[in-house]
Amino acid sequence: MPHPNDPSLRSFIPVDPASDFPIQNLPYGVFSAADSPQRRIGVAIGDFVLDLAVLESEGLIDLAPAYDVFAQDSLNPFMSLGPPVWSKTRARISELLRHDNPELRDNKALRSRAVLARAGVTMHLPFHVSGYTDFYSSKEHATNVGVMFRGKDNALQPNWLHMPIGYNGRASTVVVSGTKVQRPRGQLKPPNVDVPSFGPCKRLDFELEMGVVIGQPSNMGEMLTEVQAEAMIFGFVLLNDWSARDIQQWEYVPLGPFQAKAFATSISPWVVTREALEPFRVAGPNQEPTPLPYLQQKGAQNYDLELDVSLRAPGMKAAQTICRTNFKYMYWSSVQQLMHHASSGCAMSIGDLLGSGTISGPEKHQRGSLLEISWNGTEPVELADGIKRSFLEDGDSLAIRGWCQGDGYRIGFGEVEGTVAAAG
Amino acid sequence: MPHPNDPSLRSFIPVDPASDFPIQNLPYGVFSAADSPQRRIGVAIGDFVLDLAVLESEGLIDLAPAYDVFAQDSLNPFMSLGPPVWSKTRARISELLRHDNPELRDNKALRSRAVLARAGVTMHLPFHVSGYTDFYSSKEHATNVGVMFRGKDNALQPNWLHMPIGYNGRASTVVVSGTKVQRPRGQLKPPNVDVPSFGPCKRLDFELEMGVVIGQPSNMGEMLTEVQAEAMIFGFVLLNDWSARDIQQWEYVPLGPFQAKAFATSISPWVVTREALEPFRVAGPNQEPTPLPYLQQKGAQNYDLELDVSLRAPGMKAAQTICRTNFKYMYWSSVQQLMHHASSGCAMSIGDLLGSGTISGPEKHQRGSLLEISWNGTEPVELADGIKRSFLEDGDSLAIRGWCQGDGYRIGFGEVEGTVAAAG
Repeated sequence: MPHPNDPSLRSFIPVDPASDFPIQNLPYGVFSAADSPQRRIGVAIGDFVLDLAVLESEGLIDLAPAYDVFAQDSLNPFMSLGPPVWSKTRARISELLRHDNPELRDNKALRSRAVLARAGVTMHLPFHVSGYTDFYSSKEHATNVGVMFRGKDNALQPNWLHMPIGYNGRASTVVVSGTKVQRPRGQLKPPNVDVPSFGPCKRLDFELEMGVVIGQPSNMGEMLTEVQAEAMIFGFVLLNDWSARDIQQWEYVPLGPFQAKAFATSISPWVVTREALEPFRVAGPNQEPTPLPYLQQKGAQNYDLELDVSLRAPGMKAAQTICRTNFKYMYWSSVQQLMHHASSGCAMSIGDLLGSGTISGPEKHQRGSLLEISWNGTEPVELADGIKRSFLEDGDSLAIRGWCQGDGYRIGFGEVEGTVAAAG
Repeated sequence: MPHPNDPSLRSFIPVDPASDFPIQNLPYGVFSAADSPQRRIGVAIGDFVLDLAVLESEGLIDLAPAYDVFAQDSLNPFMSLGPPVWSKTRARISELLRHDNPELRDNKALRSRAVLARAGVTMHLPFHVSGYTDFYSSKEHATNVGVMFRGKDNALQPNWLHMPIGYNGRASTVVVSGTKVQRPRGQLKPPNVDVPSFGPCKRLDFELEMGVVIGQPSNMGEMLTEVQAEAMIFGFVLLNDWSARDIQQWEYVPLGPFQAKAFATSISPWVVTREALEPFRVAGPNQEPTPLPYLQQKGAQNYDLELDVSLRAPGMKAAQTICRTNFKYMYWSSVQQLMHHASSGCAMSIGDLLGSGTISGPEKHQRGSLLEISWNGTEPVELADGIKRSFLEDGDSLAIRGWCQGDGYRIGFGEVEGTVAAAG
């Protein structure tokens, strides 16, 4: 049987070469439909969703001794079954969708129940977020922010090159793409006033990130090897770490960002598996100084994954691209982040979400936040129709897309979109 | 019917006046026994545990339309029922335990199943920790730390008097009292060396805190009034926020504590309800400058709750008290912390745990961490038998106790204890 990543595979379901979801991808998500509102798990294929709950209940996918794993409102029970089951299940789904397999293709009654138009379903948060951790692992991003606030000579903090700096975020406000994001309120104290006031954030920003979905737990007190850490990664999503720059500026010393990031984090609905991204692994940037042994990796742990960000302000006819970059630029890999996270003895949980940190690249058009694009508001970005932006305004729609480009196909993530609503 | 807080109430179960658990307390916990290993919910009364799962299944406590709420391994389902049910249930338990009520007192068969010796049961984590947030709200603690590291003139950060500063902690490593705490490893870079090394923490500390248990959720995007915030608080526990000072020192700029706090947080097994603490409410310190309107409180939101910390090093015959302080000193109350937490639009969840921050008092013997007690290691604390401590060593047992002293009775928390194990 060919490997599910084989570029020559074709499905009996027609898939446009520009689609994010060919048979080589098979990302998992949680969906419902108007006439069947129960949430369950599906896989995206072209413009369709394959309903895995139907296939499992009909015996076409067998996860025994577990059962009803896909008739759930989150991927956590499926993820708990572990990497060999993840691989076997993906291979079976690939087999069922192949153009030369009659099992599903020629069973019209089953197909009408199990294959639904994507346009007709509603996507939900794909997993229960047990913990959300956000890193800060793009050297270009950290340098840009450092130059802005501390000057060129002290741009990177002394610890930055020695470990993936990160902090615990707020899991309860991770939402799925399409959820409106209400402008947060908070304490604001611009440098030119003496006392803070409370009101709507005036410097609302996005941060372009990838999110790692942890599918296996680790024990309290245990460290992780590179092989162990990699095996715990179920997949990846696009992530927008919405940020209130003015709230953050006033609150973050000495304990880090808190309310400035707590109001919302958006993720894409489809979890692209680590296995599907395998053909696009590349080495990351050279790490100098050499990381301490507990952070060293032998594998190529970065991914050649193209990313873009588009913004559509009220009144614009179409969204406009404001950033094009690539996940491959990240200095610290997701595996290194995970090894560091567990290094103190911190237990990792099924459903943990690790944000990569803002992904900027070496070029000016590769900056992954408005803070960087507008250089702290001093160089507003010019959009169509004379519209300018230093930070996000009410009604702005911000979308991140991402994909790995293969030869004649792409392994895509769809998008994570959020529209800013006025403060309540 | 007398109120469950009525000091004149007596139980048919004998309770020593020095006990933490008279009939006026009735704290909830999760326990199991050797001959009945299923975890379920009980209430402490004197030296006994009242098995609520038995009482519910026998119809003596009726939570309809909910059922089997006490045959659970966490308090979350019970907490989800809301404050009126919390009050009604506590009143019913009080009634069942009263000396003049024959229902349970004279039913020997039921009593033998429902009333177990506390010495014979094992206590577990009392609730599923949805999110763990740690504050920094003792002015004395923040000042001590500030003087140590920044000098007297810049002791308090500019934001400190304007809001309860806090950060998201790691929920996956919150453990119950009695769990051994393994010394964490991490990156260490003392000021006198150029590059960090990785190894066991050399400056392991405790932090004396109270933990607030959130029993009701709030919606994303919504702020909380004082009345709403107070009603969401189910109860309180003792909390030890174990801290690796050396790991923290190197990692915390600019995103705050991460691995330095991620390895363990210990809590006491019994959740004392907010209602039981009601008679001990007191006003907190005067707040100057006046807090912004969203943080203002009309009620007396502090508690006169005595706290002590004892340390027993290997070779010591008995534990020795190293701190005596009081929860009433906290500058920012738990209600203010919760109002601030939700202020950006951050959704709160059932099972969220909010650490108060280290509770120090104005006097030297009231310092709630070894960092302060030993003044950053310069004044080691002298224990019995010539033993000295600047920070915790392997084998040290650290216990925190807390209680509100009534007239002839106390509303106590028991203790939270942890013994330090060598790095793995």
